Amino acid sequence: MQKEKPLILITNDDGIAAPGIKALVESVKHLGTIVVLAPDSPQSAMGHAITISKPLRVDRSHIFEDIESYQCSGTPVDCVKLAHDKILPRLPDLVLSGINHGSNSSINVIYSGTMSAAVEAAIEGIPSIGFSLLDYSYDADFEPAKHYITHIVEKVIQYSLPKYVTLNVNIPKLSKEEIKGIKICRQARAKWDEDFDERIDPNGRKYYWLVGKFTMLEESNDTDQAALNDGYVSVVPIKFDMTDYDALDVLKNMNL
Amino acid sequence: MQKEKPLILITNDDGIAAPGIKALVESVKHLGTIVVLAPDSPQSAMGHAITISKPLRVDRSHIFEDIESYQCSGTPVDCVKLAHDKILPRLPDLVLSGINHGSNSSINVIYSGTMSAAVEAAIEGIPSIGFSLLDYSYDADFEPAKHYITHIVEKVIQYSLPKYVTLNVNIPKLSKEEIKGIKICRQARAKWDEDFDERIDPNGRKYYWLVGKFTMLEESNDTDQAALNDGYVSVVPIKFDMTDYDALDVLKNMNL
Repeated sequence: MQKEKPLILITNDDGIAAPGIKALVESVKHLGTIVVLAPDSPQSAMGHAITISKPLRVDRSHIFEDIESYQCSGTPVDCVKLAHDKILPRLPDLVLSGINHGSNSSINVIYSGTMSAAVEAAIEGIPSIGFSLLDYSYDADFEPAKHYITHIVEKVIQYSLPKYVTLNVNIPKLSKEEIKGIKICRQARAKWDEDFDERIDPNGRKYYWLVGKFTMLEESNDTDQAALNDGYVSVVPIKFDMTDYDALDVLKNMNL
Repeated sequence: MQKEKPLILITNDDGIAAPGIKALVESVKHLGTIVVLAPDSPQSAMGHAITISKPLRVDRSHIFEDIESYQCSGTPVDCVKLAHDKILPRLPDLVLSGINHGSNSSINVIYSGTMSAAVEAAIEGIPSIGFSLLDYSYDADFEPAKHYITHIVEKVIQYSLPKYVTLNVNIPKLSKEEIKGIKICRQARAKWDEDFDERIDPNGRKYYWLVGKFTMLEESNDTDQAALNDGYVSVVPIKFDMTDYDALDVLKNMNL
């Protein structure tokens, strides 16, 4: 990357007031010029949603001392789009998203607002990383995560990333001493088995709460899920070309 | 597939009242037992969003004659999850989504609620297809699309699909005679260049409308975009493993 201090955009999906984004800012603020533009409210599980049927608001925030920051009424992907079109003086050198409160490993990547913000940056050709801690609690201890985040961001600034690639980094809920290191891995095959909780409202009408059980569909040891289970920080390179190249020939034989 | 009539779930992202889903039902209702479960309002550009912070409603709809149908307050992905957990007697044999009013080719696949519903089915191991017509108008002529949809769904029922693969089918805005046929292709590399429209509300506060310009980033002729430009129906096999396998070695050399 260039010799001047890198311009780093930070966003998340838990909202600008979440402890995770504060921990992310603290992890990297010495590494570049930081601008925060994050949702003004929680936007978990928003996937790659964008806001097209209503306008967006962006307001200056004073939640971070000495860091230029803004809150936005839109989704995490909206935040990335707005930041580089309207807020930043130029394309950022790096986009960081998180620290998410909860796992974005395996199939979670596809539902995750945190990761979608990072993927949106990759679509724009900007190096990006999404960080998640395997602890949903707002009182989670982010200190071990911060150590690894600083290290990974330093390496990415030093080496950059292949163009159009984003990193999905998940950090186990362990102490710094317990974490064994970093593993590069692939996305594990897993899914959520739904079991909607059916209830009756005071007017006698049914309603449903989405609940689910995470189910692994493979036992391989080269996946993000296996790395996390073994006490490692998992790093998966993510791309947005969803073509299944292996299936192209199968389809060609179907004589559509 | 099994000998009995296949159970086909139909959903979309434009909402149950959109002309596109009616055209999809008409295209395939002779091919199986159809159940419709679709959003009760437009959910375009919702990506793979799911509803976790509020409950969902599902109501019986009478919008389709002789077809069991339901409308749901959630996203397209919520519809697929709810359908097989609470509404259908068993896992469907096929999930169809669309016909979307507007293109889901190239990078649009990642923002699309239509395609995310199909991808959700693939995560569940159910063969699925998303259909889109390159015409945003509610008065669009769906007749040429219906012809190709019937043909493709017949072939998929005959041959099935590789497990965990969904098809992204886009149909050009052309007459039946003008459409040259079907091409199997890969997702084109493209992006949306944002240009947010900045306005001032009656109270003097700024707000922004998302507008963008579709920009192709390659000129190859094996992409969905090229096929559509040449007058073909494009079919791209889509997978939800977002791992960039080519990038794994690059990352391993970064000594993270």
